[in-house]
Amino acid sequence: MNQEYPSTLLERAVKEFTKLPGIGRKTATRLVLHLLRKKEAEVAAFSDSILTLKREAKYCKVCHSISDTDICPICSNPKRDHSVICVVENIQDVMAVENTMQYRGVYHVLGGVISPMDGVSPSDLNIESLVARVAEGGVKEIIMALSSTMEGDTTNFYIYRKLSQYNVELSVIARGISVGDELEYADEVTLGSSIINRTPFMGKNI
Amino acid sequence: MNQEYPSTLLERAVKEFTKLPGIGRKTATRLVLHLLRKKEAEVAAFSDSILTLKREAKYCKVCHSISDTDICPICSNPKRDHSVICVVENIQDVMAVENTMQYRGVYHVLGGVISPMDGVSPSDLNIESLVARVAEGGVKEIIMALSSTMEGDTTNFYIYRKLSQYNVELSVIARGISVGDELEYADEVTLGSSIINRTPFMGKNI
Repeated sequence: MNQEYPSTLLERAVKEFTKLPGIGRKTATRLVLHLLRKKEAEVAAFSDSILTLKREAKYCKVCHSISDTDICPICSNPKRDHSVICVVENIQDVMAVENTMQYRGVYHVLGGVISPMDGVSPSDLNIESLVARVAEGGVKEIIMALSSTMEGDTTNFYIYRKLSQYNVELSVIARGISVGDELEYADEVTLGSSIINRTPFMGKNI
Repeated sequence: MNQEYPSTLLERAVKEFTKLPGIGRKTATRLVLHLLRKKEAEVAAFSDSILTLKREAKYCKVCHSISDTDICPICSNPKRDHSVICVVENIQDVMAVENTMQYRGVYHVLGGVISPMDGVSPSDLNIESLVARVAEGGVKEIIMALSSTMEGDTTNFYIYRKLSQYNVELSVIARGISVGDELEYADEVTLGSSIINRTPFMGKNI
């Protein structure tokens, strides 16, 4: 569809919105025209919020998660277990794990996974600082919570090698059937993994 | 889900994005973090595009559609048929009709439909200027292309009354089965309307 826009300003705004993931031309047009109906102050607040975030966002010096301060609220919380570090790809993953309310350790945000195809090498990721945290001592366990992809597995292995000289336990989050999923639709690798890593019925309390 | 954001700047940007139609908290977070990974210049371009649109967008003095100029490209095009006016609710509708490539008349954007429930009265809409266009003469037909809702029908009737003193034909776009739709799933009003307004097989050329 080679749509003609009646205004170049409109076209430009729509074009910017289509750069967002999952936003096509039709949705972008709808979003832009929605904003256009708002008061100028509201549009300015919208526009400013994202630019201010980009300009002023800080990243935690310890775990590299986004933060308003030099050290993020999780890393500076004395009630968190600083001997357990959960390694994740990005900030969304920190929020996802936090939402489970099942984890009281700290985090380390890699900023991605090793992916030669996309030109992401280990030096592009926050791996050295993870090794430094372990080398400093006091860390008992590293929980790898990366995507269950080849890139995630490669990164797991790379970090395993890097940390092998330290006295630290390395674990990987469980792969298995999602809660609510039906067995017949699960792929065989996941199902196989969930059988091998079966847990005692009624669980044990952690 | 009462999600804790690790940064107030992030939370503020996400909150602004959730004000957009159809964008929930999860999507908003994804969009904002996507932008956060971009270069500052790119985020500035995004941010600026929408604010500039809001500040500098002009509306056509004739049809009230968005335009870069005082008179929009459609209204100022001598090749369009200025004796036929298609009345639509908003700018998206102008673009939707334009995309059909079936219409070569001009438009009139009402800016909504009469809706006492939402506090939209006829004086909030561009109805007076439509009447003025007709009163000026030279208009043969008005095509009402509003939503097929009670509000749309009310607006059709209101405009019909307003224009009854002028020698102008008033038509409404056809209601019927959508192309590609199966008959059994159509509602009875639409199906009934499509039977009453049946057209000769193989059509007649317009």
